[in-house]
Amino acid sequence: MERPVVTTTFYVRYAETDQMGIVHHSAYLVWLEEGRSQYMRACGADYAEIERSGALFAVAEAHVRYEAPARYGERVAVRTWVEEVRSRTITFGYAVHNADTGQRLATGWTKHVCLDRNGRVIIIPDAWRALLAGGPRVGAFGDQQVWTEREAE
Amino acid sequence: MERPVVTTTFYVRYAETDQMGIVHHSAYLVWLEEGRSQYMRACGADYAEIERSGALFAVAEAHVRYEAPARYGERVAVRTWVEEVRSRTITFGYAVHNADTGQRLATGWTKHVCLDRNGRVIIIPDAWRALLAGGPRVGAFGDQQVWTEREAE
Amino acid sequence: MERPVVTTTFYVRYAETDQMGIVHHSAYLVWLEEGRSQYMRACGADYAEIERSGALFAVAEAHVRYEAPARYGERVAVRTWVEEVRSRTITFGYAVHNADTGQRLATGWTKHVCLDRNGRVIIIPDAWRALLAGGPRVGAFGDQQVWTEREAE
Amino acid sequence: MERPVVTTTFYVRYAETDQMGIVHHSAYLVWLEEGRSQYMRACGADYAEIERSGALFAVAEAHVRYEAPARYGERVAVRTWVEEVRSRTITFGYAVHNADTGQRLATGWTKHVCLDRNGRVIIIPDAWRALLAGGPRVGAFGDQQVWTEREAE
Repeated sequence: MERPVVTTTFYVRYAETDQMGIVHHSAYLVWLEEGRSQYMRACGADYAEIERSGALFAVAEAHVRYEAPARYGERVAVRTWVEEVRSRTITFGYAVHNADTGQRLATGWTKHVCLDRNGRVIIIPDAWRALLAGGPRVGAFGDQQVWTEREAE
Repeated sequence: MERPVVTTTFYVRYAETDQMGIVHHSAYLVWLEEGRSQYMRACGADYAEIERSGALFAVAEAHVRYEAPARYGERVAVRTWVEEVRSRTITFGYAVHNADTGQRLATGWTKHVCLDRNGRVIIIPDAWRALLAGGPRVGAFGDQQVWTEREAE
Repeated sequence: MERPVVTTTFYVRYAETDQMGIVHHSAYLVWLEEGRSQYMRACGADYAEIERSGALFAVAEAHVRYEAPARYGERVAVRTWVEEVRSRTITFGYAVHNADTGQRLATGWTKHVCLDRNGRVIIIPDAWRALLAGGPRVGAFGDQQVWTEREAE
Repeated sequence: MERPVVTTTFYVRYAETDQMGIVHHSAYLVWLEEGRSQYMRACGADYAEIERSGALFAVAEAHVRYEAPARYGERVAVRTWVEEVRSRTITFGYAVHNADTGQRLATGWTKHVCLDRNGRVIIIPDAWRALLAGGPRVGAFGDQQVWTEREAE
């Protein structure tokens, strides 16, 4: 089976490091979220739009496995894909690489549950389901380079 | 002239450090904000309540002067006072100290403008003006120790 | 079996919220870390001391399950315990509760691998192993209330 | 007088917002720092390299004036220039704009003092002074677009 993967590349920020001299582990959740945001943009809608429509995707579960440290000034690439879509939840998968050496730094996944404005769990609206099913389109977004590729599972 | 000062004490968090081995300068803005939150709680209302009433205090200007580094695991004390209240703005003053040695680590101020829910500048509602004019009361809040003192300007 | 649990209580900071009106999911990793720091302090050593000795505990894996949202101004309590100690790794377990209502907000665990200053995996030094084996002592640390309790597994 | 300006463009991250629905004011310090990092890269050296050489530029003072809110998903552009170089300090100036509408969101400056590894104030090493005096070169860095321009003071 194949699946589209969206890659988002950016510099490691100084503020993301800690006194161990490497990126703090909590920063990866922010990076995965940015990868997810780019995935949605590549699908033709941004998540800001989804929230304005009244559907929220709250994070229900998050998992990160740290394999190698990232350091200030390095460029990292977050590869993002959809792991599973169910009626009320969606799970994204991620791999973080050093964009220049290709070394894998971390893998992770986040599970999101669809909520309405009152915080009640709802079925993912058809419009967003269709959008996700359509998948990302090859392209570039703003100044950050984004592309899609097919990956054997 | 004298003015009440509310002191909020907490541990420096590991995530707040950077690769220089000291607390990142952006963390101080978060600390000042927490000092401000405690000041409001000591006045008898918390800021969450103010926001629910429809008035927001957006940060319009912030200034921090860093004098000595703070390090992970140290306890810091943020001393907070009201510098000036005008019809539409309020300015808080702060001094950050090492809670154990007393050494001053930073000073700063933040200016806030009162907005309604649509982002329009409004006159600070009487209820909140009265609350601030009443000033903080000596006491303790939750597990964090809070007290007031008189300071010569 | 029973195990000691250290509870760390603090206010939710404004900066920890996001536009969903609740605490951002990445903030929980910072909270768990602060729970871990307090656990170590309750054991009689702080983690800053461990790092100065040349041993680092790098985060190798992190998992959080979000059950209910935390909001600005609420007091949260992070309950921390040691899940497992092996020769080169240690796993901490956590539960985050609303400190006032008792509602459970999240559970999680983090696995740490012991490294020397050059980033090589090492066996956890005896001194730190003994310290962890000794477990936390009932007490209070700074202005934050900390206590231990026995919990059935 | 004219001076070179380096513009760094990126997306606003979800984690940078707060419950007011806009970017938290502390995030701007992180953005200014990233603007500063890009300025250095455009000068032909990155700040990581400077730190490895033994010179640190610690933040001594920071000032931000917030003019309009930034929101999740928007692209912001941080324009960075050198305001003043003295024997032991350097001051950077910044303006943050919405990259698409051009609206100015904030202005600010940060003053940095040069320290050696022991935290002592030192004269800025000649190598770094020459680098800064040389100024940034037009170009692109990684996936982020960076350019220089001349601006009337």
